[in-house]
Amino acid sequence: MEIKIVQNILSANDQIAVGNQQLLSRNRVFAINLMSSPGAGKTSLILQTIDRLKDKVSIGVIEGDIASTLDADKIKHTGIPVVQVNTGGECHLDANMFSNAINNLPLADIDLLLIENVGNLVCPAEFNLGEHRKAMILSTPEGDDKPYKYPLMFIEADAVLINKVDLLPLLEFNITAFRQVVKGMNPDVAIFQVSCKTGEGIDDWVSWLLAEVDAIWQKQES
Amino acid sequence: MEIKIVQNILSANDQIAVGNQQLLSRNRVFAINLMSSPGAGKTSLILQTIDRLKDKVSIGVIEGDIASTLDADKIKHTGIPVVQVNTGGECHLDANMFSNAINNLPLADIDLLLIENVGNLVCPAEFNLGEHRKAMILSTPEGDDKPYKYPLMFIEADAVLINKVDLLPLLEFNITAFRQVVKGMNPDVAIFQVSCKTGEGIDDWVSWLLAEVDAIWQKQES
Repeated sequence: MEIKIVQNILSANDQIAVGNQQLLSRNRVFAINLMSSPGAGKTSLILQTIDRLKDKVSIGVIEGDIASTLDADKIKHTGIPVVQVNTGGECHLDANMFSNAINNLPLADIDLLLIENVGNLVCPAEFNLGEHRKAMILSTPEGDDKPYKYPLMFIEADAVLINKVDLLPLLEFNITAFRQVVKGMNPDVAIFQVSCKTGEGIDDWVSWLLAEVDAIWQKQES
Repeated sequence: MEIKIVQNILSANDQIAVGNQQLLSRNRVFAINLMSSPGAGKTSLILQTIDRLKDKVSIGVIEGDIASTLDADKIKHTGIPVVQVNTGGECHLDANMFSNAINNLPLADIDLLLIENVGNLVCPAEFNLGEHRKAMILSTPEGDDKPYKYPLMFIEADAVLINKVDLLPLLEFNITAFRQVVKGMNPDVAIFQVSCKTGEGIDDWVSWLLAEVDAIWQKQES
């Protein structure tokens, strides 16, 4: 009798993530997964990004939280389609939750999908959703030593945003050293210094985002 | 034949936690588990607490991190016994890790054990270590909406410290509303407003801590 060997190439989560990305790409929706500690500025970054890009591209938002609809309520005021995912205790979004969320969005009408993950610098980095890019936000009051303590998040990110730079004069945060450490761990990462409060640096971030969207579709068509 | 019914009263983690607390209590070591988001000020609070209490009680420290010994190195300078636990990817300390750590400390010589958990506002709240009390730190730049988003942490805490109050003039953080929400979720919680940078409010925190130590041993002896 022949013995069958089943190779488990992908985890269940990654299997669902592949399906999610296929669905997004069929609808030409570019998705970016935004991750950070609680209160680092994910919702504020989404609001700033909507403000800069709403006349250029159609935007959709997925808000991930353990509980509450506070963040989705803030997005709803902008008129952008938004789905709130309450994880009910889980400390991260996974591909299955993301699948349910995108099936509740008008994908044919969306070009750019902004995903706010649960506030957590650890677990969200371990779960692919099917997004095209990952970005993480580190706010200056958290301190410049975080890449040493939470390495996976900094390694997985395509972009790192240093937020709340308006508070830098009050803090001991060495931007040069921080950038060097992050680049040492992840040489290809894009790093932005922003303040979602004053708007500083947001133009650079949205320019990068639009360039990544173009790059993805050009690659798929070539 | 009689059918045996095995009641799984305690999880494996809680079983180990009970043993940990028995070991601590035999040695008259009071343990407190400090939890917060990354960068909210756990290590700074430990350093402030050591500074205020080192001449009154013998202190020991356990530093939990996914990677690095940065925090343990800071404590070592104080001459206090410290054990670093690197969780190797895990987003929280558990009772088994804590058991290994306390077995590497001179328990007979320690009155007060300060445990710094991994920076995470979600998972650490789900795992008892065998500690006598839990405290959580919320730093003002994280925003006053966190109890709605991370309810379990605020419900589990015996004390909530609002840290970085020196930054309040620059932030939109409603202290009165925050205190009301936290008390609504957890009526018996003690709340402190502190700045580990300026030292503001630290006296109230250490007074509470010493009173809790006394209360625990008086309860055990009565």
